Amino acid sequence: MIKKYRHSDEFSYTLGMTITMEALIRRSDLMNCVYLSSDIKINENVEKLKTLCAKNDIKVFTNDKVFNVLSQKGNCFVIGVFKKFQTQLNDNSHIVLVNPSDAGNLGNIIRTATGLGYENVAIIKPTVDAFDPKTIRASMGAIFNINIRYYDTIEQYINDFPNHKLYSFMLKASKLLNEQTFESPFSLVFGNEASGLPDQYAEFANPTIIPQTDKVDSLNLTTASCIAMYVAKYGLK
Amino acid sequence: MIKKYRHSDEFSYTLGMTITMEALIRRSDLMNCVYLSSDIKINENVEKLKTLCAKNDIKVFTNDKVFNVLSQKGNCFVIGVFKKFQTQLNDNSHIVLVNPSDAGNLGNIIRTATGLGYENVAIIKPTVDAFDPKTIRASMGAIFNINIRYYDTIEQYINDFPNHKLYSFMLKASKLLNEQTFESPFSLVFGNEASGLPDQYAEFANPTIIPQTDKVDSLNLTTASCIAMYVAKYGLK
Repeated sequence: MIKKYRHSDEFSYTLGMTITMEALIRRSDLMNCVYLSSDIKINENVEKLKTLCAKNDIKVFTNDKVFNVLSQKGNCFVIGVFKKFQTQLNDNSHIVLVNPSDAGNLGNIIRTATGLGYENVAIIKPTVDAFDPKTIRASMGAIFNINIRYYDTIEQYINDFPNHKLYSFMLKASKLLNEQTFESPFSLVFGNEASGLPDQYAEFANPTIIPQTDKVDSLNLTTASCIAMYVAKYGLK
Repeated sequence: MIKKYRHSDEFSYTLGMTITMEALIRRSDLMNCVYLSSDIKINENVEKLKTLCAKNDIKVFTNDKVFNVLSQKGNCFVIGVFKKFQTQLNDNSHIVLVNPSDAGNLGNIIRTATGLGYENVAIIKPTVDAFDPKTIRASMGAIFNINIRYYDTIEQYINDFPNHKLYSFMLKASKLLNEQTFESPFSLVFGNEASGLPDQYAEFANPTIIPQTDKVDSLNLTTASCIAMYVAKYGLK
């Protein structure tokens, strides 16, 4: 029986062809089954998806009820069911998100991180659900391509990675991003959308600010993080 | 009589306190009147808004019907009515958006451009309406703080600014962003969300690509543009 997604569920859903294919290609081990809508147009992609499922022993069902329950949008014809996961982070640089509260932002940041070559995302609780179908959708499936792990506190995270140099992005910082030097392996730390990072982060994580005019309130989390992720990776002159 | 916003209207609307205040502070000359919901809680901001309106001879009405017509969200208690405008671009560097199709993206890019200190946005038609209340909202009012002008074609734009050096962001480019040098005044040119820039832009506008892994389809327009705007401004080593 398929029910509306809840945070406590063991499984979550990939809504749409692109994201379901990403999941099948990258993490077929997590896939439980795939549902097709009876309205789906059979094309190359559907054949590819069926072949991939057959190869990995993943059942494919045609079932329209599932779409009524799980998808608000009319343009979704494929849904994948996958087991939620966490992975051990490796020793390369990390993105650390402290209390992110919006599924769209979280997914977007995961997508950009993956696109820029980052391999690890740590999320400090409380947090929006990284495996909510909305997050998965916003990540465009990139979440299946990156190591992701929840931590209860920043202390636990630091305990696991004592050699990572932390850089916290906050408005109260005095060091400008274009004057900051990033030593690898580093951790780029970003706060909540509305409240940012607590002041005490300035004490243990090199506080850094993206130079900005006073003509806007502040750059939003997604914007700030994608700029910082790029600059930390490629450096500034 | 207040009607739902249409592209052909002479006026548009600022939905919400923050954006209406931005409009009043930056471009009171454009403001026609301000509507308050009868549900608004009178606080410091409301007093400030009323003072600003009185000072600039802008009428303030309490009228709940307007909110039913113009605002889908229940949390909007202030609406400003302003005359749509275009401004001459100045000779500093520009952001050029070719056929943007999403109001949220366009507003977001205008906000980031303003935050990073850019003063000019050129938009090549066809385009989503830069003065749609959705664009205004996504810009968080930054649109009142930047020069913005529509052009029918890229040729017309180039004709107006023959000395600007153009950089086009496209996946087919061979020059990486981190290897590109930006000569001022420059124009950063970005294409449509789905289709990107037409191939011929490579011939007259230095084609540039943001280095990215093959683990995602491509960085989205908002992400790509905010990285490029930052890097072009602060340079790379």
